[in-house]
Formats: sequence, C-alpha cells, structure tokens
Amino acid sequence: MAKRVYNFNAGPAVLPLPVLGKAQAELLDYRGMGMSILEMSHRSAVFDKLMAQVKDDMSMLLGIPESYALLFLQGGASMQFDMLPMNLLPKDGSADYIVNGVWGKTALKEARKLGVARLAASSEASNFDRTPDLSTVDFDPGAAYLHFTSNETIHGVQWTREPQPPQGVPLVCDMSSDFLSRPIGVAKYGLIYAGAQKNAGPAGVTIVIIRKDLLERVPEGMPAMLDYRLMAEKNSLYNTPPVFSIYIVGLVLSWLIESGGLDGIAQVNEQKASTIYGAIDQSGGFYRGFVIPENRSRMNVTFGLPSTELEESFVREAGKQGLVGVKGHRSVGGMRASIYNALPLDAVEALAQFMVDFQRKHG
Amino acid sequence: MAKRVYNFNAGPAVLPLPVLGKAQAELLDYRGMGMSILEMSHRSAVFDKLMAQVKDDMSMLLGIPESYALLFLQGGASMQFDMLPMNLLPKDGSADYIVNGVWGKTALKEARKLGVARLAASSEASNFDRTPDLSTVDFDPGAAYLHFTSNETIHGVQWTREPQPPQGVPLVCDMSSDFLSRPIGVAKYGLIYAGAQKNAGPAGVTIVIIRKDLLERVPEGMPAMLDYRLMAEKNSLYNTPPVFSIYIVGLVLSWLIESGGLDGIAQVNEQKASTIYGAIDQSGGFYRGFVIPENRSRMNVTFGLPSTELEESFVREAGKQGLVGVKGHRSVGGMRASIYNALPLDAVEALAQFMVDFQRKHG
Repeated sequence: MAKRVYNFNAGPAVLPLPVLGKAQAELLDYRGMGMSILEMSHRSAVFDKLMAQVKDDMSMLLGIPESYALLFLQGGASMQFDMLPMNLLPKDGSADYIVNGVWGKTALKEARKLGVARLAASSEASNFDRTPDLSTVDFDPGAAYLHFTSNETIHGVQWTREPQPPQGVPLVCDMSSDFLSRPIGVAKYGLIYAGAQKNAGPAGVTIVIIRKDLLERVPEGMPAMLDYRLMAEKNSLYNTPPVFSIYIVGLVLSWLIESGGLDGIAQVNEQKASTIYGAIDQSGGFYRGFVIPENRSRMNVTFGLPSTELEESFVREAGKQGLVGVKGHRSVGGMRASIYNALPLDAVEALAQFMVDFQRKHG
Repeated sequence: MAKRVYNFNAGPAVLPLPVLGKAQAELLDYRGMGMSILEMSHRSAVFDKLMAQVKDDMSMLLGIPESYALLFLQGGASMQFDMLPMNLLPKDGSADYIVNGVWGKTALKEARKLGVARLAASSEASNFDRTPDLSTVDFDPGAAYLHFTSNETIHGVQWTREPQPPQGVPLVCDMSSDFLSRPIGVAKYGLIYAGAQKNAGPAGVTIVIIRKDLLERVPEGMPAMLDYRLMAEKNSLYNTPPVFSIYIVGLVLSWLIESGGLDGIAQVNEQKASTIYGAIDQSGGFYRGFVIPENRSRMNVTFGLPSTELEESFVREAGKQGLVGVKGHRSVGGMRASIYNALPLDAVEALAQFMVDFQRKHG
C-alpha cells in the first residue's frame, strides 16, 4: 500500500483512491484490449463506448436536460474565458459580468479583448470577502449573457444561490471549483463550464454544458477549435480529445454514483466544511476566516493566523503531519484548505484537530 | 504480465512498455510524495523539477538552441492551425502554405479564416501520393512564414528534406507525426509544432518550439490562452497545464535517451520501414503502396490490396493475430500501419510475415 498524505491542494487536487487504484490496475491493459487507454484510438469502438458512458453518467448525476450539449474540451476555464465571448458575444452586443474574485475578474478582462463586456457588480471593494449585493444592480436586459463564478477558488467565496438574470438573458457560470459538489438546476443556465481538476478529474479536460439553442448564435467562420457548434456536432471528437483525462473523469463519475450521487456528496461536503469552519469559529479569533459566513466556500476554506510567522509555522508543522497543500494563494496569503469531493472526512478531522493542537502550542 | 497486442494505431498510439510500467508503478505515490502525479499542484516544487527535466531532455535530444522557446500547450495540432496565424500572420501580411495531405490542407483552410494565406504548392492533383515538386514554385519572399507538414499521417507522405524558404521567411512545420523520430536541425525552423500522441506521449499536450525573436511579432491584446508570447513568458504555466500528459512525455524522453537518442531511433525506424515496404515491393503487386518510393513515410505505411473484400479480410485476420490498428483512414481506404518509435521491431516483423502468409492464402 502506497503512503498517502492528506492533500488539500486547490487543483490539481486529490482524487478518490478507488479511482487511482482502478487506473493503476488497468494501465497496461484496458479491459482486455491488450493496450493501455493511453494508446487507444479515439476513433475506436472502445473509446466510443467510454465516451458515451461518461456522458450518460454526467448527464444523470447533474440532471442535464436533452436540450443541452455536453462537451469535453481542452485549455481549462481560461480557454473558456476567450471561447465564450468569441462564440456568444456578438460584435454589436454587450455581456454582463458579476465579479466576486480573481477568476471572474480575469474572465471579464479576456471578454473585453474580444467585445463589449460590462462590470455589472463587484465585491472587490471589500477584497472579495463576499459575493456582491445584487439588490441594487440593474442588469442589462439586452445582454448577450450574464456571467458569474459560482465558487472563487482563491478567496474561498461561494454563492449560495445563483444570480437571477433578466428574462431571456442566458446565465453563464464558471463552475470550475464547485462543479459536481452539490446538485444544481442545469435548466437555469445557458452555459456552464468547468476545468476538471477540482472535483471531476485530472487537469487536461474542460467540461462545457451549453443549451443547444445558443449554438445557433455562434458566428460563421469561427476557428474550428474554438467553435462550440462544431464541437457539439462532432461530439467533442473534431480532433484527438484528451483521452486519458476523459477516462479518469469517467472513473470519478462512477465513484460519485457509488458514493450517493450529488445529494450524498453535498451532505459530506457540508459536514467537512462545518468541521473546519467550526475550528475557526471556536478558536476565539486565533484563526480568522477571510470570508463572511454567508459566502464561505464549501470547497476552499481560507483563513489567517495572528502573524505571518505563525502562518509559516502552521504550513511547516502541518506538512510534517502529512497535511499538505494548506498554504494560501500568494495573492491572498494565509491558509487555504481545499476540501473537494475526494478528500475524505478523516482528512478534514485531522486538520481540525491539528488546528486545535497548533493553537494550544502557539496561541 | 498483461497481454499486449501489436498496436499499429495512427495516434493515440503505442507507448514504450517501460514507460507504461513506470507510470503504473508510481501512479498512487509519485516518488515518495504520498500523492499521485494526477493530484499534484502545477505550482509545486516537484512539478517545477519535472517540467525542467522534460524541457532539458527534449532540448538535448533535438538540439534546441537557446534562442528558441519550448512550450507545452493544449488542443493538438488543430489548435496550432489557428494559433499560428493569430500570432504570426499580420493583418496586412500573407503566409505561404505547401500542401501535401489532409492536415496541411486543413491548416491552410484555418489560416484563411484569420488572414491571407496562399497555396504555394500542392500535390492534391496526384491524390497526395508525393510531396509537391518545388522546383518551379515561386515562394513569396515577403511571406509571414512558409508552412508545411513534414509527415502526412493519413496518406503516409514524408519529406526527405525540408523545403527551403526564401531568405528571411520563417519555416513553420507541423511535425506531429514524425516529431522525435529522427534528428532535425531546429535552427532551420522558425516554429515547429507537434501533437504528442504519436512519438512523444499521450493525447492532451502539444509541443511548440518557437524562435524567440518571432515572439516579438505577436500582436497586442491577444486572448491569453492563444498568445505564444505569454505562454513563453509564463513557461507554459499561465494556467493549469496538462500535468499527466507532460509527465508521460518526460518518461518517453527518458526512454528515448536510453534507447540511443534520435540517431539510434532513426536507424530502427529505417529498419522497420524497410521491412514493411520490402514486404509490399516483394509481393508482385498484390500489395500496392499508395505513395511514390521517394516520399514513403517512415511512420505511416499505407497500401492497398486487390479488392476491398481482401482488405476487410486482412484487417480481420490481422486482428485475430494480435495485429491491431492496420485499417487505413476512411478518406483513403486500404491499410495503414503506423510504426512509431515505440512500436518494437518484432511487431513489424510479425506484420511482414502476416502479409506473406495472407498473400499465400488469398493471392
């Protein structure tokens, strides 16, 4: 049995051990085919079957209606920051962006290279410690779409409920870091995208779920690799897809189904988040959460200690106890514990206990 | 020991067995880190080291001068069909394309969506059975670049020597299917790109080698993920790279170094190609090569049989003997045996023997 640490990395992130075990077991011979999945043609019947299963499982888990296309692309959410306006922001149109963290801000910046995009609401003034108050926001009723980021990985800010766009404006969501962590109503969205490397699999594949009628808005003459409509027509097989990453996503989906689906995992995720936020709140101010309670992320728990010296000690001592990846993003500082689907409850309990012990020693 | 077939797939394709064995052995615990390479942060010191090693090994094998940047991107060669003109074809400029197969033709089509691109030479009139005669071609001395495809995977056409562009015109090559199969003079090129899934690794990562002075031609305001200059500045880590695919490329490079480098592998590749082309030429016309002898690919051997019935039997009977992936591309028909670096000589000998036996039985 290989030694395993508790992995709090923000992404690429921990994967379920049964997924890794299965991938390892069949790495030299994929299901009796006499070759590795790494060596298999994406035009083979075996891969066709794999792809169909992945799509079925994801559609079932998320409840994706028939009126949506499910795509597997490359380039991560960052590529979607560009593809989205290229495909859905017409030259004479405008898109609305809600910004509650670094990723949303970057998405807006990219969109502005390609067309007119408006900052509809932002929480930057309070250093992204919350989602913006939308009660006084006038969304553009003619916007090409309304974009938001459901969970900001860096600051650890998550929406409890998605924003409500004006009638007829498609809601677009960068769901990279809380995709598959809880049930969502896909039908509320025009487009959802997510890099896989948080809850869905390894780096190298990006999931896009798009309402099919929006594909008709894609302009003619698009570069092939950036064309949602072509990718939908070709079932994500216009060219060679990232076969292995899709395969691992498939294994993760199977594990998720066996683990009780999105309702089941959401409960565990709530329990894990409560455990760490509890440790923060019961520390008498030794640990300070960076985000207001209502918007605390269930995926990325951010907090600070009384001094940078203590924060450095925390990272170092945690590492010695096999708790790795807890250092905060360089732009925020402090700590960040990412507690995605695949991170077991005992990892979170170990971290909470370590927090108590560390405070006793240093507080 | 897992059962292994002889894998003649055109890509994704056979990988060296020691590479798969190593990947399997350390899949749950990457070099004592207590986590899988699939779970490892791309911002970690361990991945930094891996990336540096991959770059060093590839630079050493290919003899990449210091004046070139080596990038690891996503999207395959197809993404490069678009990125290349976006970055290096100015609005008021023109690029020259030599077309000797389907991929070059597609590259030209994509470039024309984004700017002015000229068909400088083509062998389509003879159904891509050769590289075009360049003796009468007037290349544009002011072209932004001259593009060609060193090995056309579908028809099995390979250049013996790269075309000579006019003084000052950067030579750009889609080297996807013969990259790392033989020594090349990188300094002859302005830009080389290659999807990894033939000789360099699995699907999901694309290698770009670009002369650094060309980065200065990249226009301002480029979408970040499509910007060669930004990717070079960020050492391919602007966003999360395809970590696992890069890791496998690293293992392949180590195997290649241990196997005698590009000189060594080129010799074996010549021997493998001679073995199959020998079987074709000694069949008295039963097997017909699709390509004229001078341009026969050392990577993708294409040939036909006297009837489609015989071709179907060939595929079926070969499969029964563990020789898989020999069916030709749907656009060409017939057979295609891809014999990349990692395909062992005994696989090629088994195919040649099978060809003799099949002819004896059916000829």
